[in-house]
Amino acid sequence: MSGGTAHAPISFGINLGFCTKRWVTPELWAPLVRERLGLDLVQFSFDLLDPMWPDAIVDRHASDMRRATEAAGITVHSAFIGLAHYSFNQLLHPDPAVRNYAEYWLGRAYRFAALAGIPRVGGPLGAIPARLDGSEADALDPADYAELIARMNRLGERAAAEGLTELYVEPTPLRREWPWTIDQARQMMNDTAGSAVPWRLCPDWGHATFAPLYGDVTDGMESWLRDLSDVITAVHIQQTDFTLDRHWDFTVPGRVDPVEAAALLRRTGVDACPVFLEVFYPFEQDSASILRALETSCARLKQALA
Amino acid sequence: MSGGTAHAPISFGINLGFCTKRWVTPELWAPLVRERLGLDLVQFSFDLLDPMWPDAIVDRHASDMRRATEAAGITVHSAFIGLAHYSFNQLLHPDPAVRNYAEYWLGRAYRFAALAGIPRVGGPLGAIPARLDGSEADALDPADYAELIARMNRLGERAAAEGLTELYVEPTPLRREWPWTIDQARQMMNDTAGSAVPWRLCPDWGHATFAPLYGDVTDGMESWLRDLSDVITAVHIQQTDFTLDRHWDFTVPGRVDPVEAAALLRRTGVDACPVFLEVFYPFEQDSASILRALETSCARLKQALA
Repeated sequence: MSGGTAHAPISFGINLGFCTKRWVTPELWAPLVRERLGLDLVQFSFDLLDPMWPDAIVDRHASDMRRATEAAGITVHSAFIGLAHYSFNQLLHPDPAVRNYAEYWLGRAYRFAALAGIPRVGGPLGAIPARLDGSEADALDPADYAELIARMNRLGERAAAEGLTELYVEPTPLRREWPWTIDQARQMMNDTAGSAVPWRLCPDWGHATFAPLYGDVTDGMESWLRDLSDVITAVHIQQTDFTLDRHWDFTVPGRVDPVEAAALLRRTGVDACPVFLEVFYPFEQDSASILRALETSCARLKQALA
Repeated sequence: MSGGTAHAPISFGINLGFCTKRWVTPELWAPLVRERLGLDLVQFSFDLLDPMWPDAIVDRHASDMRRATEAAGITVHSAFIGLAHYSFNQLLHPDPAVRNYAEYWLGRAYRFAALAGIPRVGGPLGAIPARLDGSEADALDPADYAELIARMNRLGERAAAEGLTELYVEPTPLRREWPWTIDQARQMMNDTAGSAVPWRLCPDWGHATFAPLYGDVTDGMESWLRDLSDVITAVHIQQTDFTLDRHWDFTVPGRVDPVEAAALLRRTGVDACPVFLEVFYPFEQDSASILRALETSCARLKQALA
């Protein structure tokens, strides 16, 4: 490779959110990911399996998944909260009993992940409600924040008991969710530094660049990656227009260029982390068109990150 | 009212899906619906309450809701499956144990509804997976269909035991869900005619007009309403462009005209049914803009349906 700069390739995989209601069992998604998309790395989505299913079902699905991914030569890096569970207020619901249930839900998610051989679990943590007039608090009540940190540290113990190695917070671009700024994310990482299993960040290309919340987002992703590179160990990529959190694939025109994205990851020192394409499609879109778009998108991203 | 045709007004209410993660408790949504939107009729969404929460939480939320809606003078017509539960394959999941769990989930939904004083429950029934190559079956296996009907009749018994008065199927424009044609919907109504609590249909303006599936949809909603008027007892309205199932509000330009919609409901004899506006917004959209758009939309629809 004379004359060029030799780079180690950036690991690239796909979040299985695109499989929701379509390719829901590992017998379907494992060969699809391996053969059709040519990938060997995935992030599982809890839209494909509800951790609240009874143990007998969860356990059977966990061993099915272990078998199918081993057979296909696929590594499941982590398991992330999907659209279904993200629809709830989770650990920031106004009712403390519902917050307890959300913590219990995560414990069950860890248990499933351990059984399926998935070492990491994560996602957004929760949302406080909007006010009656539509305004939104831009600070979390200190007592609520302290409770959230206590829950995260307790979840760290639970994850350690299950043998997991890492837990993730995925910051989202909403004032009602937490954390939504770089400073809040840093504070949270400091406040959970003693967790039995480390809490880390998984920023998303379409979250850090949501202009209606952050204003000028030209350097949105660069700021998050640069300022938090020591606590970021996975990244979500998507195509987006910076005006909404689109989660488009890369056949759609948008503001994210895969080659520039790769350069940015290398420049900020986050190139040792795996990058996961996370895309969502309308439920009513035909499945064949999704596979065609994903084939093209994965090929472009693989080439750019290589 | 000389010179005009005197019409009884069509009942108009709103599905609470727009409250997801924002106005999640009745203390928030009841005054908002009553005072800000000027409505006294709602359809509850299971995105605001998960029937799998432990009994003690569900029971407390049910009595809170009963109290708050009585105080505000709001009628809760029905409770419908929201985005969270719709993300799963429900009664058509490939694993029979998961289908059993989905049936159990609905039983718990009925129990909550009864406790909250909500007489009707409904939503889409489920989805079969897509095939590995992205193609989609356009017929349900006869054994799977027979099982689905058996579950619906069993759910009718369960709903009767809870004292509910009506159960709904909401047809969706997906080959993998059931029913998605008028003929399938009629067949299903015939096959569940002996249910202890009647199964009825709640068609959606944006489902019947999804051109990529149905082709020419100029008369899409008219066909569903006309051919199934005897088994339709509620209707979802939304603004849409007929190219996706948009669930836009009526500040967005689209193909649905509220005045024409009212005329169509009257012409097809479905004007005794309540009509519910069902809209969804991106999670990241600011809440104040949503309330402004809903105020305008509800005023336009109320006027058109009056």
